[in-house]
Amino acid sequence: MNPSLKGKLSPLSIKLFEAKKEKKLTFAEIGEKLGKDEVWVAAVFYEQAKPEESDLVKLGVLLDIQENYLINSFDVHTYFPNRGGLFDLPPADPLIYRLYEIIQVYGYPLKAIINEKFGDGIMSAIDFTANVEKVEKDDQERVKITLEGKYLPFKKW
Amino acid sequence: MNPSLKGKLSPLSIKLFEAKKEKKLTFAEIGEKLGKDEVWVAAVFYEQAKPEESDLVKLGVLLDIQENYLINSFDVHTYFPNRGGLFDLPPADPLIYRLYEIIQVYGYPLKAIINEKFGDGIMSAIDFTANVEKVEKDDQERVKITLEGKYLPFKKW
Amino acid sequence: MNPSLKGKLSPLSIKLFEAKKEKKLTFAEIGEKLGKDEVWVAAVFYEQAKPEESDLVKLGVLLDIQENYLINSFDVHTYFPNRGGLFDLPPADPLIYRLYEIIQVYGYPLKAIINEKFGDGIMSAIDFTANVEKVEKDDQERVKITLEGKYLPFKKW
Amino acid sequence: MNPSLKGKLSPLSIKLFEAKKEKKLTFAEIGEKLGKDEVWVAAVFYEQAKPEESDLVKLGVLLDIQENYLINSFDVHTYFPNRGGLFDLPPADPLIYRLYEIIQVYGYPLKAIINEKFGDGIMSAIDFTANVEKVEKDDQERVKITLEGKYLPFKKW
Amino acid sequence: MNPSLKGKLSPLSIKLFEAKKEKKLTFAEIGEKLGKDEVWVAAVFYEQAKPEESDLVKLGVLLDIQENYLINSFDVHTYFPNRGGLFDLPPADPLIYRLYEIIQVYGYPLKAIINEKFGDGIMSAIDFTANVEKVEKDDQERVKITLEGKYLPFKKW
Amino acid sequence: MNPSLKGKLSPLSIKLFEAKKEKKLTFAEIGEKLGKDEVWVAAVFYEQAKPEESDLVKLGVLLDIQENYLINSFDVHTYFPNRGGLFDLPPADPLIYRLYEIIQVYGYPLKAIINEKFGDGIMSAIDFTANVEKVEKDDQERVKITLEGKYLPFKKW
Amino acid sequence: MNPSLKGKLSPLSIKLFEAKKEKKLTFAEIGEKLGKDEVWVAAVFYEQAKPEESDLVKLGVLLDIQENYLINSFDVHTYFPNRGGLFDLPPADPLIYRLYEIIQVYGYPLKAIINEKFGDGIMSAIDFTANVEKVEKDDQERVKITLEGKYLPFKKW
Amino acid sequence: MNPSLKGKLSPLSIKLFEAKKEKKLTFAEIGEKLGKDEVWVAAVFYEQAKPEESDLVKLGVLLDIQENYLINSFDVHTYFPNRGGLFDLPPADPLIYRLYEIIQVYGYPLKAIINEKFGDGIMSAIDFTANVEKVEKDDQERVKITLEGKYLPFKKW
Amino acid sequence: MNPSLKGKLSPLSIKLFEAKKEKKLTFAEIGEKLGKDEVWVAAVFYEQAKPEESDLVKLGVLLDIQENYLINSFDVHTYFPNRGGLFDLPPADPLIYRLYEIIQVYGYPLKAIINEKFGDGIMSAIDFTANVEKVEKDDQERVKITLEGKYLPFKKW
Amino acid sequence: MNPSLKGKLSPLSIKLFEAKKEKKLTFAEIGEKLGKDEVWVAAVFYEQAKPEESDLVKLGVLLDIQENYLINSFDVHTYFPNRGGLFDLPPADPLIYRLYEIIQVYGYPLKAIINEKFGDGIMSAIDFTANVEKVEKDDQERVKITLEGKYLPFKKW
Repeated sequence: MNPSLKGKLSPLSIKLFEAKKEKKLTFAEIGEKLGKDEVWVAAVFYEQAKPEESDLVKLGVLLDIQENYLINSFDVHTYFPNRGGLFDLPPADPLIYRLYEIIQVYGYPLKAIINEKFGDGIMSAIDFTANVEKVEKDDQERVKITLEGKYLPFKKW
Repeated sequence: MNPSLKGKLSPLSIKLFEAKKEKKLTFAEIGEKLGKDEVWVAAVFYEQAKPEESDLVKLGVLLDIQENYLINSFDVHTYFPNRGGLFDLPPADPLIYRLYEIIQVYGYPLKAIINEKFGDGIMSAIDFTANVEKVEKDDQERVKITLEGKYLPFKKW
Repeated sequence: MNPSLKGKLSPLSIKLFEAKKEKKLTFAEIGEKLGKDEVWVAAVFYEQAKPEESDLVKLGVLLDIQENYLINSFDVHTYFPNRGGLFDLPPADPLIYRLYEIIQVYGYPLKAIINEKFGDGIMSAIDFTANVEKVEKDDQERVKITLEGKYLPFKKW
Repeated sequence: MNPSLKGKLSPLSIKLFEAKKEKKLTFAEIGEKLGKDEVWVAAVFYEQAKPEESDLVKLGVLLDIQENYLINSFDVHTYFPNRGGLFDLPPADPLIYRLYEIIQVYGYPLKAIINEKFGDGIMSAIDFTANVEKVEKDDQERVKITLEGKYLPFKKW
Repeated sequence: MNPSLKGKLSPLSIKLFEAKKEKKLTFAEIGEKLGKDEVWVAAVFYEQAKPEESDLVKLGVLLDIQENYLINSFDVHTYFPNRGGLFDLPPADPLIYRLYEIIQVYGYPLKAIINEKFGDGIMSAIDFTANVEKVEKDDQERVKITLEGKYLPFKKW
Repeated sequence: MNPSLKGKLSPLSIKLFEAKKEKKLTFAEIGEKLGKDEVWVAAVFYEQAKPEESDLVKLGVLLDIQENYLINSFDVHTYFPNRGGLFDLPPADPLIYRLYEIIQVYGYPLKAIINEKFGDGIMSAIDFTANVEKVEKDDQERVKITLEGKYLPFKKW
Repeated sequence: MNPSLKGKLSPLSIKLFEAKKEKKLTFAEIGEKLGKDEVWVAAVFYEQAKPEESDLVKLGVLLDIQENYLINSFDVHTYFPNRGGLFDLPPADPLIYRLYEIIQVYGYPLKAIINEKFGDGIMSAIDFTANVEKVEKDDQERVKITLEGKYLPFKKW
Repeated sequence: MNPSLKGKLSPLSIKLFEAKKEKKLTFAEIGEKLGKDEVWVAAVFYEQAKPEESDLVKLGVLLDIQENYLINSFDVHTYFPNRGGLFDLPPADPLIYRLYEIIQVYGYPLKAIINEKFGDGIMSAIDFTANVEKVEKDDQERVKITLEGKYLPFKKW
Repeated sequence: MNPSLKGKLSPLSIKLFEAKKEKKLTFAEIGEKLGKDEVWVAAVFYEQAKPEESDLVKLGVLLDIQENYLINSFDVHTYFPNRGGLFDLPPADPLIYRLYEIIQVYGYPLKAIINEKFGDGIMSAIDFTANVEKVEKDDQERVKITLEGKYLPFKKW
Repeated sequence: MNPSLKGKLSPLSIKLFEAKKEKKLTFAEIGEKLGKDEVWVAAVFYEQAKPEESDLVKLGVLLDIQENYLINSFDVHTYFPNRGGLFDLPPADPLIYRLYEIIQVYGYPLKAIINEKFGDGIMSAIDFTANVEKVEKDDQERVKITLEGKYLPFKKW
């Protein structure tokens, strides 16, 4: 794991990453076991999403971590992720920067289309899911990211 | 159009927006006529994409703008969009900010999944398409954005 | 109106402010006529909210502005406010800075209480209302701002 | 607790959070015992507010922390909170960002209404209280935040 | 007047400065006529303070500006200064930078002394006055700036 | 002491603060013993001012710190404070922010008055003193800060 | 190695640099052994490129580091470099700044020429190589950096 | 030309671009006529390089601009380009950003190699040339940028 | 003159530059006539220094500008330069950046030497002069900049 | 030594400073022994310049540090200073800020004079020396800093 990241993740998170490495499991494999999408599972590892107790039980078994340790760390009464903050913006890493660039270039076009299709509102980033697929077209591998969120109209009052 | 945007778009772009407003056409309708996706069409209006001559001929007819004017403005030898720069980052507009927030929160999870699925590389933002759909789930309207780009592995040399 | 603001508002918005000044109307009075809250009305003037046609009809009468002019400017198909961006952050104006300071100082405490009361989610700033009241306590005038938004739990997927 | 936060809080503060977790107490429950609002109590834990000796006596009993330890740490002669600074602005966490966005979007409207209702002055963020309530409307849970501060007119001299 | 400043002041403000230059009046002389401190008068010229009608009557006579013009511009119902924003921080001008440097260097020492003398609170910048005097010491001219503001203790709730 | 501050002060400085806390001395009391102003004494503690050997002798006695330790730390040949840098600008702490706000709002007015009274020059922040007094007016406690610096005219060459 | 860099590199990376120093090998020499360019080898050391297993076997022999240690650290399933982030931009170091300056000054000229020669697209920084040569001209040593990347045209859709 | 760029170029520069467009000349063609590289010619158009009188004579003929106009504008005694400043850093345009990213990712590796090959010094960006070539490899078009600058060792004194 | 500069200089300043260009005078020649250093004269042109009436009389004659115009513009009662602000920091122009780099690299060494030679104080930038000379050494042209300012010791109080 | 500095210097550098303090040597004295200027010697201590082996031999003797230790640390094959980065810009320390201010205020005037005297080029900050002298004028101590660098004309190609 990147050293600058290490300072921003809790010991719990680092333990999860190490156990995953030792078990040679991908997020896809863990997600399948948990009945959750791989992106969401990765978000739990990066402390960007909050797992439920049932997820923790399965995770404990899969990664050979004491269940109590996980349930205590992700305590349902006090663990609420402090999201964001893992890297500086603009992101330096080329893979993440490309996503950032897409917003710079296609931000207004996307807003225009969403407004035309839905009205004066937004796509929620909370009631929201993200997926990654590999698609093959014309002998090329292509990355397909699907972002889906509830449409929320601006309230008038 | 937002006044701060006006100072960042050329007279040509402003003319396109005004003609579109007068004709009461949506980007979807224009896109259908051009045989292009609505997001890409909006990107042309915001000077974030470069149209071909065949697009301009159709656009001129549809919006009642002299074809010569368009072909001259989008001159194939000298018009190369200067992309980005339409708004400050982080974006203040809530709709665009939500996209930015998704990167902040899910940036590392998405990188992790893309790396696991594809290897050490990126999703291109150049050999790239974006689409917006309206989907209905559980009596909710949901915004679905699909981003798709060619996978580019880092070259070793 | 502040000159730096003027460059960020459209001619329509400036016209609204001038008509309001000439008619010596407060936002409270306009709001009452429109059946809308004064904060929301001010947000329309500052191009931070989108009025409906019925609001425009009443506004036109009240401010003596041609109804067509307003309906055309706030065109239901193309006018979608580009929110935010009216001032730099941190805000220099003392009144607005105090609101910003409240977030700096009480941001984490508010998050902690919302998380404890509601769970892992947010208060929506879209399905949202804001009000201002004057309250008298111990011979003091006090400003009371009420912010109310829908609770949105983070989706798991 | 978030690791980036840990570096910004004193050992005392971390001890308070751990005791609270062990005792499985909410800020609301602690506040009730202290006769103080839950937001203010959370502000004490985050070192954004200064407790009085009588608060410390009750807190010591409730959390099973030696009273002397607390009174010495929050020493009445030398402990004056160094407020703010717990996170970077703009805030990355979605819950806190929504508050920030409200200022961006409704900052000028709120200023306009406060000026119209009170005159040329501000709402104090010092002689100030904040509360959080859960309200139910139309089968929705809504977050209601009330900010109340003394009105201070600009002095002329 | 500095050209970068000009773009940030309203035509009214520019008119005031020009009239003052033509009349060859200092702020001290204008202040004396208005019965106001020279710093406050300068703040009115820079649109950082709000004059009352009685000030405007005297100002109109003194500067030979139509009284109606002033009263209309500083309209009691709609003119509320949008304070700050005249220069970027850190300030480039050496005179203003020195004030900024004093805060950088002596900010914590001043906080420590105010806390020790008054308790947990602040010096108000709203219920506040500032003065400039020339003092002579040891054959030197020295600038003496006096800042005085109401002490506001943090409220507990 | 605030943990973020701790990382910016040397062990010497932290020792001074701890000794002061143990001895229950205010800066005013220490200043009186040293024959120095309390603000300057606080500046020494925050490593923003350089004490002389005679100050160190008195300080050692007063705080029960070995004189040698102090004289060695504040070594006359190598200890030259590296001023500033204790907090980010703009300052988050409300007390210090108010000072910053005063410069934002009254920066140009103060410059105008100093220029009119003295000519083209500055108030030195080096040949400079600062004081804090408590004044009572109309049953109010008011904070009075006096900043005094040598006037330095710009040299022409 | 520079101390600020140390905090940004993993223990593995630091071990590589130390072994290289001990063996008194240049990147050119290591590159020759690996059959890779020296710039790419340096990028591996700085954790900006991902080596293959065959590179690690050779590197282990050359630097006398246990092969297992390297292969485990650069684990093919979980090690994906988190690129960038080693220094702040603009770069302070004069050598690196000169490269940055070249982009500032010649950025638009280079874009213009690439657009004229290739069309509306970019030079990939992923399918990309960089080389450094020493050339002698007119009795001068000159640094020659060759950057070469695949041309990627913007997709229309 | 991009509108944001227009505000940063002098009328002269805009005239040059318009004449070039009208004459349908590429920078390569202009460069050939001037006996100068196309990148340098583009740099002159963007006011990032200073032409000599002999260049201006040829340029006047080629672009049908009055020679006097050019020679007067690029007056040998007063025209010294104010380089840089044409865009904000980091650059938003994808083509220019890729160059910026190369520095972020390969900055230290390039420094390491230059230091190893040359010693403690830099590549000059002043005694410097840049070229762009199109190369074909494996049926791909590749962009090849060559940067060459004099090696300057740090002086010891 | 650079267009971005034009927006930051007053019409007076632009007139001075144009007259200088027409008269084909260098700052050295103007300085000689005024009995002032060329750097200071350039500072007057860039509105970074304040001329005296006697300078204006000579300047009027030399540049063929009406003396009244100059004396009125540089009015002794109201013209006080608003220094700095002509370019963003860090400076993009290579010549000015080199000066900035010298501070980055040699800032602490210079501070160390000044402290050792003078004590705890600064070199004034107000009671200050700057000169530029051309020196020839080993067949090289070298730029020699001399900065000289009054030593100001920090006051203790 | 300032604690924030400590984190940016290597253990070697800290050792040098401590040895210098113990030996009660000034940089001037060390420079004299090494036959080098005091500013350059300080730059070595701050890791902003690279010493030669002969310097290290003398330094080891003078400071009583094992010669091997120094030669190994400043290893001729791998030690190349990573210059800059010791403080944030703008510099907070008043002494260093004054140098920064001189660039802000006199940057353009200096550029104008250098361009007039030398042509279109820069003063090198690499082939460069800096000196500090104490001069006495009119019973004042004045700091005189001499910056001298090779003139480099922009190459045309």
